[in-house]
Amino acid sequence: MSFNKPLIIDVHGHYTTAPKALENWRNQQIAALKQPASMPKVADLQISDDELRESIELNQLAKMKERGSDITIFSPRASFMAHHIGDFQVSSTWAAICNELCYRVSQLFPEHFIGAAMLPQSPGVDPKTCIPELEKCVKEYGFVGINLNPDPSGGHWTSPPLTDRHWYPIYEKMVEHDIPAMVHVSTSCNNCFHTTGAHYLNADTTAFMQCLQGDLFKDFPTLKFLIPHGGGAVPYHWGRFRGLAQEMKKPLLQEHLLNNIFFDTCVYHQPGIDLLTKVIPVDNILFASEMIGAVRGIDPETGHYYDDTKRYVLATPHLSEAQRYQVFEGNARRVFSRLDARLKAQGK
Amino acid sequence: MSFNKPLIIDVHGHYTTAPKALENWRNQQIAALKQPASMPKVADLQISDDELRESIELNQLAKMKERGSDITIFSPRASFMAHHIGDFQVSSTWAAICNELCYRVSQLFPEHFIGAAMLPQSPGVDPKTCIPELEKCVKEYGFVGINLNPDPSGGHWTSPPLTDRHWYPIYEKMVEHDIPAMVHVSTSCNNCFHTTGAHYLNADTTAFMQCLQGDLFKDFPTLKFLIPHGGGAVPYHWGRFRGLAQEMKKPLLQEHLLNNIFFDTCVYHQPGIDLLTKVIPVDNILFASEMIGAVRGIDPETGHYYDDTKRYVLATPHLSEAQRYQVFEGNARRVFSRLDARLKAQGK
Repeated sequence: MSFNKPLIIDVHGHYTTAPKALENWRNQQIAALKQPASMPKVADLQISDDELRESIELNQLAKMKERGSDITIFSPRASFMAHHIGDFQVSSTWAAICNELCYRVSQLFPEHFIGAAMLPQSPGVDPKTCIPELEKCVKEYGFVGINLNPDPSGGHWTSPPLTDRHWYPIYEKMVEHDIPAMVHVSTSCNNCFHTTGAHYLNADTTAFMQCLQGDLFKDFPTLKFLIPHGGGAVPYHWGRFRGLAQEMKKPLLQEHLLNNIFFDTCVYHQPGIDLLTKVIPVDNILFASEMIGAVRGIDPETGHYYDDTKRYVLATPHLSEAQRYQVFEGNARRVFSRLDARLKAQGK
Repeated sequence: MSFNKPLIIDVHGHYTTAPKALENWRNQQIAALKQPASMPKVADLQISDDELRESIELNQLAKMKERGSDITIFSPRASFMAHHIGDFQVSSTWAAICNELCYRVSQLFPEHFIGAAMLPQSPGVDPKTCIPELEKCVKEYGFVGINLNPDPSGGHWTSPPLTDRHWYPIYEKMVEHDIPAMVHVSTSCNNCFHTTGAHYLNADTTAFMQCLQGDLFKDFPTLKFLIPHGGGAVPYHWGRFRGLAQEMKKPLLQEHLLNNIFFDTCVYHQPGIDLLTKVIPVDNILFASEMIGAVRGIDPETGHYYDDTKRYVLATPHLSEAQRYQVFEGNARRVFSRLDARLKAQGK
């Protein structure tokens, strides 16, 4: 294994640039909640391969080539999951459509995209109802992970904590198939929380703290959670979390959580990545950009895209070359074992 | 003004060590919500000056002397505010009791403690009902700030964002008296959010993002918010917030928010303070420890208390001596103008 030219694996990308027909279909579906007779059929949504190709080639793939990243773990647009809308059937149909589009993208660009599934979660509905979609995505679509929404209510936080047995049916399947979950909320429908500026980061912090309070990984020693957006507030407050664990008589965080919890690098400035790589053990950091996502502009302080996180990872003084290989490639292959298998099958 | 030996002003301390009688009284009050006949009277709570003195001398004051800090802006225990319990009358009685105790502490130790008020907030109740307590604390007790809870529901976030006119009656009084508000939630009664490990940090991030989305400081150019716990996730994600502001066509954060928003130094490890002081302009950073608070232990990695934040501020490479003076003293005197007046009256 050479460290000289790692594969650059971006573990956090969403299909934010899907053809407009997708959003139109969703809007019809939402409108039909009040007028069931107008519910659109799945077959009404027609998106050609050419349209898919163009939506990717002009956007994500163009930027991947510009920035020099090779593979993106690609899931449906997070803010569009909107699990709070409608009932399980609504979520189920919507998840199936969105996952299938990501699958088609992964077939059109097998060297560059591999899928991760959104789940058809719905507030108050047993998570085990998500299992058929999960299994279809893993077995038929070759997806290598899932996105798990700890708050399908969209900012009202009405589900039990992630450590509750409520979620165990999902965890059992994750362990069975050896797929990690990125813990990722969707749009906030609570006016207090801006979706990408508050709700996402709060959810990251909340999920970590739920795990810290509990002992989930005693029940599931091989369960793996990826906490996106650099772990929310967690690395910045690492001392606080170490201290809280100590007061709760939990083991050191390394032992208590870091065999199971990983952080991505979606932190959009150099000092943030410097802190992340200083504080969090390198084994627990996976490269990601969430491109094209929440923050699309160019930073006037640097002249580069805020979400061009590869630059920050390359520039941080806290990683050796071997460690950079881990962040860009090695850790992703270890955490996403099915991605590793696929890459090996491709001779990578 | 000499920079050589600044006053060390800790802008964030709560009376977490009040005599047990206080908690007992509160428990009776809560129990009486179901049995109104057993509602305790205010006069039932008897705490002597000697008890107050001991609770401070053995705890906060002892640690202040050990660590070399001079003055603490002292407010009632944040997690005990519990604005979600009972109605306005319950909160009103409780706030009056808690504020009076902080006032008595400030009278017993006028060189070391000065008060900041908790407000008698209650979910769904107009914030203007808090004004009599606020004015009593400022005019009679000489308090220099308030703690404003953006979520009196305790983790259900049922109030409007801080930018909503709902809150304006409070802001008008803050401006009139030139007192800042520390934006500080209380106990979470939502099982998803650990109080000090998630809810506090989430609220900090949320409050900042609410202000970023809005234009509150156009209406109140002299309004001042202190965001505690180092600003939640904000400094770590400063690039994200700069980028979101840019996408929303807001001015640069310096102009949009940093004349009005300040961060404390309650970040319990060196890398966190290093990031804070690297990223946030020094004019916007105020020394604080929240001692004795959420994290009471000794960090095995350093041998010092996690919340001994003075050490981190002294050790960060990002502050000159003049800038350290600002963080320890100058900024607090500027933001808390009534504290400055008091100190001047004391010849400081």
